[in-house]
Amino acid sequence: MQVWFSDQTDGFCISCRVKAVLHHERSSYQEICVLDTDVFGRMLVLDDVIQTTERDEFTYHEMLVHVPLMIHPAPRRVAIIGGGDGGSVREVAKHPEVGEIFLVEIDARVVWAARTFLPTISCALQDGRVKILEEDGIAHMATKREEYDVIIVDAPDPVGAAVGLFSEEFYRSCCRALRPGGLMSAQVESPHFHRELVVRMYRTARRAFADAAIYTSCVPSYPGGYWAFLLASRNEPLSLDLRGDAKELETRYWTPEVHRAAFALPRFLQEALEVVDREVSGRG
Amino acid sequence: MQVWFSDQTDGFCISCRVKAVLHHERSSYQEICVLDTDVFGRMLVLDDVIQTTERDEFTYHEMLVHVPLMIHPAPRRVAIIGGGDGGSVREVAKHPEVGEIFLVEIDARVVWAARTFLPTISCALQDGRVKILEEDGIAHMATKREEYDVIIVDAPDPVGAAVGLFSEEFYRSCCRALRPGGLMSAQVESPHFHRELVVRMYRTARRAFADAAIYTSCVPSYPGGYWAFLLASRNEPLSLDLRGDAKELETRYWTPEVHRAAFALPRFLQEALEVVDREVSGRG
Repeated sequence: MQVWFSDQTDGFCISCRVKAVLHHERSSYQEICVLDTDVFGRMLVLDDVIQTTERDEFTYHEMLVHVPLMIHPAPRRVAIIGGGDGGSVREVAKHPEVGEIFLVEIDARVVWAARTFLPTISCALQDGRVKILEEDGIAHMATKREEYDVIIVDAPDPVGAAVGLFSEEFYRSCCRALRPGGLMSAQVESPHFHRELVVRMYRTARRAFADAAIYTSCVPSYPGGYWAFLLASRNEPLSLDLRGDAKELETRYWTPEVHRAAFALPRFLQEALEVVDREVSGRG
Repeated sequence: MQVWFSDQTDGFCISCRVKAVLHHERSSYQEICVLDTDVFGRMLVLDDVIQTTERDEFTYHEMLVHVPLMIHPAPRRVAIIGGGDGGSVREVAKHPEVGEIFLVEIDARVVWAARTFLPTISCALQDGRVKILEEDGIAHMATKREEYDVIIVDAPDPVGAAVGLFSEEFYRSCCRALRPGGLMSAQVESPHFHRELVVRMYRTARRAFADAAIYTSCVPSYPGGYWAFLLASRNEPLSLDLRGDAKELETRYWTPEVHRAAFALPRFLQEALEVVDREVSGRG
């Protein structure tokens, strides 16, 4: 069947041949679609943008989650903002030292769709440590003080309601919501197609937190493949090293070597961030 | 203008909006097309497959070239197989210790198209150290004995005539064509979409050379973005370290840190290669 789904950024498009449309609805917040594709297996699409696929979601979720969780010396309480597909929850749940996992997802229909159609991604949502809060992540964080050891911002693209997840106000809320030593990670889009956004989010984090760094992964179903993540810390300096007692994790992407390598940025990106460093340190 | 070019792999497609078709011909070997696109600037397309684009070619050429050239202790004579666009030549030409650069490109029309339409990529073709040989790279290497310090296989996808550039026979020719201490690098496709090929080329190199390693870069205009490269050495063990006197290069992607990080492979790929390691060492 030559039916194709296309995820179109301005002037650039990723398309996948579709075997079946498994689900399609308009929730109160967005259009939710689950497709079965030849190349990526099952795929969650929100407002026509690929969010996650069975085949490559590990390249995203493992790096979004394990980088902060393997640096933080004692992550006990973890919050995930967005991430209703459950992929980030599944990765957090691999850490036995985590006692509570709060999934703050505004759209319960995404969680339902993931539970129903994406069992390999949503499989840890029934873990006893998981509490699903059907709330706006921005409002949630605005009220919290020293609640979490790690906050994972598993945001969609910065469009519509998600724009607030890329604001300095939200980052300041997250910093206040972190306990001492706390870390935040966030996806911050493509270094190639959204370079200004990556730089802006780094600048925002340097202002709102004590310290920050950008790291990357390669997510084949996202435009350009190369993808940036932000790591920000309540305390400075931010250490990028794995904690000493880090155990081996069952992963398909993350390894201790990949963890360290993820912070080695190509010169074009490194230099763009160094401009921010000079600004923030007042030498810009 | 809503004209789109699509590079279609089985069930997966990358498309770019086209501003103008600058050139289109059928040479003796292939269909050659140069497009001007919104997102990637000018783009060289051979037989409907994106080869290189003005915007992201540095992510490919720098990693294909500088990794072997910064490891080899004294690269004097360098051969490039394929690479008629001149991007690899441009990167090799940044190394002052290289005295001769042989570009072995079977299709002179590709070189012409690059000279005419892709000046930022082909700009070093007039460097006095460059000799362009309009020859079949496979036949060329079959006759050479201890000629080159570094061989760079800048091959298209393994389809049609290019299949031979992915054969054990060709790799054995390349190994014989290397001087003692010589290194070969080659693009070996996507770890996600062509994983079996990546593994096969690693196995082939482990058999044909004394030692080999896989490293990666992220090339946004290639399917999935994540891309694998092979490094193979005539002598063992293959050192991955930069040579001691390595100077800073003018680059946009490669840095010493990126060089080292490129060999940190995600677990799914590392484990697939370890199967080969066990086979080759007779413990498989």
